[in-house]
Amino acid sequence: MVSEDTIAALATTPGESAVGVIRLSGPQALAIADEVFRGHTKPSRARDRSVLHGEVVSEDGTSLDEVLLAVMRRPRSFTGEDVVEISCHGGMVAPRLILRRLIECGARLAEPGEFTRRAFLNGKIDLAQAEAVCDIVRAANEKAHRLALRQLKGGLSLRLARIERVLFERLIEVEAEIDFPEEEIDEANRHALMESLDAAGKQLRVLLGTEEKGRYLKNGLEVAIVGRANVGKSSLFNSLIGRERVIVSPLPGTTRDTVDARFNLNGFCLNLHDTAGLGGSDDLIEAEAVRRSLACLDSCDVALVVIDVSEPLSEADRDILREVTKKPHLVVANKIDLPARADLGLLKQPIKVSALRGDGLEVLLEHLKEMAREKIGGLEMDVAVSERHAQCIRQALEALERASQALEGGLSLELIAADLRLALDYIGEITGKKVTSEVLDEIFARFCIGK
Amino acid sequence: MVSEDTIAALATTPGESAVGVIRLSGPQALAIADEVFRGHTKPSRARDRSVLHGEVVSEDGTSLDEVLLAVMRRPRSFTGEDVVEISCHGGMVAPRLILRRLIECGARLAEPGEFTRRAFLNGKIDLAQAEAVCDIVRAANEKAHRLALRQLKGGLSLRLARIERVLFERLIEVEAEIDFPEEEIDEANRHALMESLDAAGKQLRVLLGTEEKGRYLKNGLEVAIVGRANVGKSSLFNSLIGRERVIVSPLPGTTRDTVDARFNLNGFCLNLHDTAGLGGSDDLIEAEAVRRSLACLDSCDVALVVIDVSEPLSEADRDILREVTKKPHLVVANKIDLPARADLGLLKQPIKVSALRGDGLEVLLEHLKEMAREKIGGLEMDVAVSERHAQCIRQALEALERASQALEGGLSLELIAADLRLALDYIGEITGKKVTSEVLDEIFARFCIGK
Repeated sequence: MVSEDTIAALATTPGESAVGVIRLSGPQALAIADEVFRGHTKPSRARDRSVLHGEVVSEDGTSLDEVLLAVMRRPRSFTGEDVVEISCHGGMVAPRLILRRLIECGARLAEPGEFTRRAFLNGKIDLAQAEAVCDIVRAANEKAHRLALRQLKGGLSLRLARIERVLFERLIEVEAEIDFPEEEIDEANRHALMESLDAAGKQLRVLLGTEEKGRYLKNGLEVAIVGRANVGKSSLFNSLIGRERVIVSPLPGTTRDTVDARFNLNGFCLNLHDTAGLGGSDDLIEAEAVRRSLACLDSCDVALVVIDVSEPLSEADRDILREVTKKPHLVVANKIDLPARADLGLLKQPIKVSALRGDGLEVLLEHLKEMAREKIGGLEMDVAVSERHAQCIRQALEALERASQALEGGLSLELIAADLRLALDYIGEITGKKVTSEVLDEIFARFCIGK
Repeated sequence: MVSEDTIAALATTPGESAVGVIRLSGPQALAIADEVFRGHTKPSRARDRSVLHGEVVSEDGTSLDEVLLAVMRRPRSFTGEDVVEISCHGGMVAPRLILRRLIECGARLAEPGEFTRRAFLNGKIDLAQAEAVCDIVRAANEKAHRLALRQLKGGLSLRLARIERVLFERLIEVEAEIDFPEEEIDEANRHALMESLDAAGKQLRVLLGTEEKGRYLKNGLEVAIVGRANVGKSSLFNSLIGRERVIVSPLPGTTRDTVDARFNLNGFCLNLHDTAGLGGSDDLIEAEAVRRSLACLDSCDVALVVIDVSEPLSEADRDILREVTKKPHLVVANKIDLPARADLGLLKQPIKVSALRGDGLEVLLEHLKEMAREKIGGLEMDVAVSERHAQCIRQALEALERASQALEGGLSLELIAADLRLALDYIGEITGKKVTSEVLDEIFARFCIGK
């Protein structure tokens, strides 16, 4: 047990739902539950993993809500501490009243990720598994969920453990050689060591290769709809997400905020951004809107450039087309329901659509799917490393590389041993064997409260 | 047991939260749980009110998520049927995967309110209590929550039961007199009957009187910020809700949608609506925006009319001030940070503010609080009836009134008995003793799914 205080937090999203759940973990969890709960059985006397029915009451005995209260005793609970989960009515009030009551009775409001952090500190899960908990909650689609769930179940940890074991065995051998400095390193040993370094490096590089696809899988592909004013960007946005979220009008300049929608395309997550029209206004509000549109274009992974085929291509259109050549994009020739006046010959594979009538949207979606498949699809492995993991792996690889060169150059075994140890430390940072509290702070700050 | 099928639904709000809960209720709940759950104990063999730790797996055995599964057997459960609650990781994916799996295994997606409806049909709670469940989930503040919780605990039902008991005893007496038609109704009995009718009517009218305040308490007060373009309505809105939700600019016509915020003022719930500027534009989009603003003004409970003191009062200002005289309103004289050019002498108690600098907002809030207190405050009773209850009570009162008149007029006891029975039926409709399935459909359609 590492914690002296007892933490509490709302574990569900506030909203008009049937159920709200409040979590309590720590040495005082059962005592606090005894104080706030009124039912047939006292939580502290309840069997492990049993559910009690009753009420949470305020200090003066007024009922705050009817609840189910589940008792999960240490060390079998998720955090490894005594845990109490209170299910009350959902909505904006009951969960907060109960949380406030728990705080009144001595619980402390949990920091983001603090329950999971305690699970890690109590040795219930390693750090890569702890991070997976956050990824599961954040997963935007099944693929990302499956990936995170495998990591939670130790998929990544197991692969790293195999690499660690080999490197550790070699380190022991090298250190043994150091103890007998009179002899040169044996040729067979040198060869075996070189092979192990190569194999470990190869495996680490395979893991490193999963980072980019993993990132797209987790965060989704950012898709910006750009174009000059009044080419039908919002209409296209609405048609794609299939419902009217933005006012669409025949006057230019209607969209001033960058509007977002998350969009599930065959299991690939796309974050669709509708932007304000680019170019052609000195208006003060428009200028800010244009700034936001350009920022959105700059940071997106794929741009959909919308052109109005019912008008000749303007200078603004051409500016935007020049701007996007730097990044993956699709040219969408909109308003094919109107008489064509634009010269499409100048455009690179324009996809002809009528956002208004829905014509051509299927073709556009097929193209988008193809781009998503290229960036995200075909992740063969059952794990994908995060940016943090990738950074650790890169540093481990550098250390292994130095060890290899030292070995080839016949340098001192001490140097080799030092680099092997360093590589092991970096790998250990992934699973949390070797990690500073600053790194932990940074990791768990990404979590939601209650997790 | 009234249900043959087993229902399932997500009981928590989807979102990035620690926990998601899926509910399952019905005769097949445990069998379905057995099929999807992998852990040490089978749900069907688990003790009543115990929690199991394990995984929900797909048909081919792939893990869908790690879960805690609570078993609550009939008839002690909330619905009176076998209930299984599965707590999985929160987020957008895991809860849905599990729900889909339950549906695959034979559960049916629950209708809104269907769990509570089953609790009612199985006699676990009466209809007024069932309605309270919905009110609890929807409660926007503590007062509304407390009121709904009292109703759930039978506060309203108990009051009605007392009235029913008296009326029912009188009905028996009247029917006994009918069986002996040779004699006239005894004067003492007539007097007692009249007194009972009066007392019941009085108690019902007290209940009826709680409706309006109850409605404000549950739904909150609708407050519309209105005024012509560019008087600072959005600035005022933002200052009041204390955060920037709307783009504010020095150009007229920036707000086109009616923007809402829920606002907690000393425990009173206010729904604040920022509206587009009224008057002064023939623009097509603006016309639609103005139409929305007028609709918002029309339906609100309180209007805040914003005037720009840095400009002379315009015709548009005067039009709006004339428009709002029909309803409770406050006149907000904004932009007192600028040189005054408006003649405030024409205005009724203007509240001088600078939305920009925050001057005068406290005074405005005090006035709003006072208006809220008038409309909402001082609800002495521990129950408040809903619109549906009020309708039943009004009909019961009419029947009692007719019975009184018949009694006074010396009309036939059959007529009095018929009206007494009618009054009892109407009261019974509130608690659901006497209710059609159409009424039930209407009531439970208001619920959220999973409740």
